[in-house]
Amino acid sequence: MNSATKPRVPLRWTIQTQLPVAYEIVETPDLLDPANPELLSLPGGGTSTETRLVVLDHSVSDLYGERIRAYFDANRVPVAYLAMPGDERSKSIGNVLDVVAKLNEVGTNRLSSPPIVIGGGVLADVVGLAASLYRRGIPYIRVPTTLLGQVDVSVAAKTGINFGGYRNRLGSYSPPPRTLIDRGFLATVPHRQIRNGMGEIFKMALIKDLRLFELVEEYGADLIAARFQDGEATGPLPAGVADEVIGRAIAGMAEELQPNLWEKDLRRSVDYGHSFSPLVEMRALPELLHGEAVAMDCVFSAVLAAQRGLIDGADLDRITAAAVGLGLSPSHPLFCDVDLLTEALADTVRHRDGRQNLPVLTRIGAVCFLNDLTVAEIASAADHMGRLLDAARPATAGSRG
Amino acid sequence: MNSATKPRVPLRWTIQTQLPVAYEIVETPDLLDPANPELLSLPGGGTSTETRLVVLDHSVSDLYGERIRAYFDANRVPVAYLAMPGDERSKSIGNVLDVVAKLNEVGTNRLSSPPIVIGGGVLADVVGLAASLYRRGIPYIRVPTTLLGQVDVSVAAKTGINFGGYRNRLGSYSPPPRTLIDRGFLATVPHRQIRNGMGEIFKMALIKDLRLFELVEEYGADLIAARFQDGEATGPLPAGVADEVIGRAIAGMAEELQPNLWEKDLRRSVDYGHSFSPLVEMRALPELLHGEAVAMDCVFSAVLAAQRGLIDGADLDRITAAAVGLGLSPSHPLFCDVDLLTEALADTVRHRDGRQNLPVLTRIGAVCFLNDLTVAEIASAADHMGRLLDAARPATAGSRG
Repeated sequence: MNSATKPRVPLRWTIQTQLPVAYEIVETPDLLDPANPELLSLPGGGTSTETRLVVLDHSVSDLYGERIRAYFDANRVPVAYLAMPGDERSKSIGNVLDVVAKLNEVGTNRLSSPPIVIGGGVLADVVGLAASLYRRGIPYIRVPTTLLGQVDVSVAAKTGINFGGYRNRLGSYSPPPRTLIDRGFLATVPHRQIRNGMGEIFKMALIKDLRLFELVEEYGADLIAARFQDGEATGPLPAGVADEVIGRAIAGMAEELQPNLWEKDLRRSVDYGHSFSPLVEMRALPELLHGEAVAMDCVFSAVLAAQRGLIDGADLDRITAAAVGLGLSPSHPLFCDVDLLTEALADTVRHRDGRQNLPVLTRIGAVCFLNDLTVAEIASAADHMGRLLDAARPATAGSRG
Repeated sequence: MNSATKPRVPLRWTIQTQLPVAYEIVETPDLLDPANPELLSLPGGGTSTETRLVVLDHSVSDLYGERIRAYFDANRVPVAYLAMPGDERSKSIGNVLDVVAKLNEVGTNRLSSPPIVIGGGVLADVVGLAASLYRRGIPYIRVPTTLLGQVDVSVAAKTGINFGGYRNRLGSYSPPPRTLIDRGFLATVPHRQIRNGMGEIFKMALIKDLRLFELVEEYGADLIAARFQDGEATGPLPAGVADEVIGRAIAGMAEELQPNLWEKDLRRSVDYGHSFSPLVEMRALPELLHGEAVAMDCVFSAVLAAQRGLIDGADLDRITAAAVGLGLSPSHPLFCDVDLLTEALADTVRHRDGRQNLPVLTRIGAVCFLNDLTVAEIASAADHMGRLLDAARPATAGSRG
């Protein structure tokens, strides 16, 4: 061995740090009143005179485009607009890159001219991902205009797009510093989209909030009819119910997410209704909306719990009836397809790093986690889903025979 | 006012939390010796028997493909391989999606079967971004095989791809939990690529480490000739110099990044050499390598400092001579183009949220930040860069006249 060579000492460097994250969800009525400053106010205070990118989904653009333009014009803020489709199939990398190209065109700053997204959950996911990637992350402002957006996406830190047939296969944890909620937007949302949002409220009620479940049971149909608006037209809906339902759903979500924002703990009760539904939703596209598929998974998972005796048959019937009462179908042919359900669980297991961590109810308002669910149990629950389908189907001449 | 309506109380929810981040850089000789367990060991300890995705750049595949296969075969780890190009133009969304498709195909878990990337900085950026997006982020293992990768990318938390003509326009902060460095890989790296990595070492020396600068001045050319390998063939290179140079570069980078990993502070001394070069590098593609463009920006920024009297002419000459001594050209026609340089600074200003925050030297080993650089100063420095170009150009018959 040459004297100039000596054994190298292995070296090791460790980098340790923490990223502080804070974001707020603000309910602000009359958001588009030019006198309401919330839409202009930047995270941390202050305003910007730089050109802002405002991304709208097509329906928001049609319904509110004029008021939105009037708002920014009145406040003398230069704006570049981009309108995009807001359906689940639009959660694509192509749409993310369209937003990025527009950010380039506008010349968006690193921090002080955050883009604004006004629309449903899909648009929030797409623009959120674009912002999280742009210059490795810029802030953005989120204005959810659908019920799903206001009670679920509003609190979430996640962005995502679909890829390769899998839902939310690509995405990030990048909450916007500010999310602004104006319940007034719901007045123009189609009833089916309100029911779609009810699917996530139903989920939240089941996993942790019996009071919310009771409210949904009693007033769910009226809330949907009234589109969560107060006023004389709401008929049997007592004042404050819409606020309480939305407030409990948001608070429940915030409580679950805050201690586990990056999902370091893969046992998440908020995954209830999201174990089998992601693949079902993708395979059924464009038939099922997200909340519709989630509600079915909520019922399916309740069937699994009932089969194990974790909940009794009366609770299962009550849960099924509540879904039906919300106008949400409790079953679907794909929830009777054992192979598909098994494949869905297999991908969920990869997502939960090799474990099922399957949230199931122990009562209405509480969950436990299973790690030993068998294909036989899935098959038996799928049978039950088939009977729910038959029950919902109008009787034919043949079956009356 | 109807008694059923009452003014809504604006509601506000705040979510506050922290993301702890820790990652390590381990120097481990003979990484591909089947008896060396480092490449198999998972973040946090343990090993995996699941199929791993191993991404190689084409040159690594050609030079080390057989040994890499032998390593995993000997350790009975099932592997799916993907080989990709490693040049700057390959930092594209298309290549990111190719990696994602392969992760889908392999069935990669959320945590326990992290993909492994073995290659240069470009590949690390591409695979790192794919991993950071996959299921909203999975861990990955990084094995840099070039000098640039080992001294610069190795410590960085960043991933990135180019988009719309801008360098690293899209990316994330997502360090791999483990980066493994085996200096032996450098033995097969072309000399130009070694010089490319020297560009970043040169930058680090200038901003904070006079001793490193002196080492680079004295031994830089020999280190390049010996490709940082110890042994009899290294001639005039004293034992320990390669270790010290690499070690100081890595330690310097770690020291700068740890307190500011997410760049919340936009005054970053490590941005030295990266203010004008990103656009120059993109416009010159594929002519200039990253470190080559950075070295030119280091010289250009030193000219700016000398013009202000922050450093003296002797230091400027010493810096220029050091670059030349490393075989790095100190100038380029694009660094004489005032319009392009002004445009480059404008985008850098957007990246630094409206401020120049331009790091310039106050001596060799220290920087300050400018926020009042003028176009006249850029023009004057560009003139100087033109003279450096002329000086480097072989005299023609005409000029000899």
